[in-house]
Amino acid sequence: MDSTARIERTLDAILRTGEQPGAPPLLTAALRHAVFPGGARIRPQLCLAVASACGDNDPVLTDAAACSIELLHCASLVHDDLPCFDDADTRRGRPSVHRAFGERLAVLAGDALIVESFRAIVRAGAAHPARALKLVESIGAGVGMPFGIVAGQSWECEPKVNLRDYLRAKTGALFGSATAAGALAAGASPARWRALGDWLGEAYQVADDIRDVVMDPALLGKPGGQDVSLGRPSSAKELGLSGALEQFDRLVQNAVESVPECLGAPRLRALVRAESERLVPKSWCAELSRNAVPVAARIKPPVPSPAPTTQPW
Amino acid sequence: MDSTARIERTLDAILRTGEQPGAPPLLTAALRHAVFPGGARIRPQLCLAVASACGDNDPVLTDAAACSIELLHCASLVHDDLPCFDDADTRRGRPSVHRAFGERLAVLAGDALIVESFRAIVRAGAAHPARALKLVESIGAGVGMPFGIVAGQSWECEPKVNLRDYLRAKTGALFGSATAAGALAAGASPARWRALGDWLGEAYQVADDIRDVVMDPALLGKPGGQDVSLGRPSSAKELGLSGALEQFDRLVQNAVESVPECLGAPRLRALVRAESERLVPKSWCAELSRNAVPVAARIKPPVPSPAPTTQPW
Repeated sequence: MDSTARIERTLDAILRTGEQPGAPPLLTAALRHAVFPGGARIRPQLCLAVASACGDNDPVLTDAAACSIELLHCASLVHDDLPCFDDADTRRGRPSVHRAFGERLAVLAGDALIVESFRAIVRAGAAHPARALKLVESIGAGVGMPFGIVAGQSWECEPKVNLRDYLRAKTGALFGSATAAGALAAGASPARWRALGDWLGEAYQVADDIRDVVMDPALLGKPGGQDVSLGRPSSAKELGLSGALEQFDRLVQNAVESVPECLGAPRLRALVRAESERLVPKSWCAELSRNAVPVAARIKPPVPSPAPTTQPW
Repeated sequence: MDSTARIERTLDAILRTGEQPGAPPLLTAALRHAVFPGGARIRPQLCLAVASACGDNDPVLTDAAACSIELLHCASLVHDDLPCFDDADTRRGRPSVHRAFGERLAVLAGDALIVESFRAIVRAGAAHPARALKLVESIGAGVGMPFGIVAGQSWECEPKVNLRDYLRAKTGALFGSATAAGALAAGASPARWRALGDWLGEAYQVADDIRDVVMDPALLGKPGGQDVSLGRPSSAKELGLSGALEQFDRLVQNAVESVPECLGAPRLRALVRAESERLVPKSWCAELSRNAVPVAARIKPPVPSPAPTTQPW
């Protein structure tokens, strides 16, 4: 079975566990709306690819770990879209969860996805309980305090913010967890795999900033220009668009080079390159260099930074 | 060390784990605000009492399990107080988290508390990994889908609701998890202990409905009359105040009788009786019977039920 099928099947199975007679129908539907159809599933793909490179000798646990991370990502999207944050009407080209089901069910759907993500790991942990415990802790660190995605999101509420700390926590942390989880699920040490996730996570956030500035909302699947209009820290705002594109290329190259030599290395490097092309197509760079002024104008005039101590990087 | 000291010390230690240099200061403060000073800590007290009755041979795991449940309870309070739910300005006599820190940090604080609750268990699970896995699953079931407190809260968004299912999930589920967790942490079977939590959970929700109707907001520590004004299912509304008081007494008696014979049984029965007196003092019943009409009037005029198929119980 290919990795996409493994991921979709496991996500469906996790949700079905909660879809018993007597379950609240609207919350049940809101959870499905939050998870299906998905985006690129890049975090679980990364987890599966690393597990495969490490032997993948407990695929049930690998699948659970990979999909746990995807559920946590979905939870973060549901809560980030809420009116008090991005107030986004759309996500992946469809109404956001709070637009489709109301704000209360969106809060609860995010909560339920967090809970179900951890339960999924422990349910799959019978063969290797110690691995399952490490996975909960490692993935939990990618979400919780002090450096997980919840902490990262909260930096948007702080009067002083370090851009790199913010980006690393907001997006990078869960990518780092994804590669570490792939190794842990296969019984390998996560240490040599974490750098790949860290680099990719940073690249992904820079790509998100670039896409937020340059893309049409119809292509983005959510409202564009959010970082600037909401006054959030943004690498495109800090470095300019061309600087952000260069930074993205550097981070992707670092990610490719960080893949340890192993049987699965070519697959992983190809995955990283394909994902970078999907995020920021090379054709864009050519087009942007031809139309430098108009595109650059989309992120001007510069808005006063809400974070006076933000450090460009 | 007495149980109250164990609980407060462990809650503090769990929060301190996330309070490292580089942690976002406002979210850090919001988490402390959500957890300290606490209420009666009845769920962790119950967990500790059951663990003690079962031998409590891994007190580190017991403490983590008990406090995991309390953190999940705190998370539910933070999210339930949000403007889209109860829009409560106060909690435990202080500003609610969203009033003190804003809505965004309240959403994130609830999320972080859920994550940290599960991490706390696995960090304490080194000596007994299999027990820790069972605890995450059992406690997760008390929170998640289909019958945990998140599902229970979501019944308030459904057009049709069964009152007993709603109450069991909204409050009872986490009480059931508390007694089961006490047994699991001590390596015992949770089966004979779950009834105690289930009865107490139902009693607690009925008490909450009674208190919502009769108590002064200053004594309640949060706005009163919420169930009626928000049109929520309420046993005081369904059964009338005297009917709800009788129901409460019956449930407490069932809880007391469900305590299995063991060395810790007298302590547990005393805990149940003390808690019931704290929740609904006997002096109230006497006063209510002297002033039946004025007090009953506080829950009239009856508002149209939002749940036409609600079944009284």
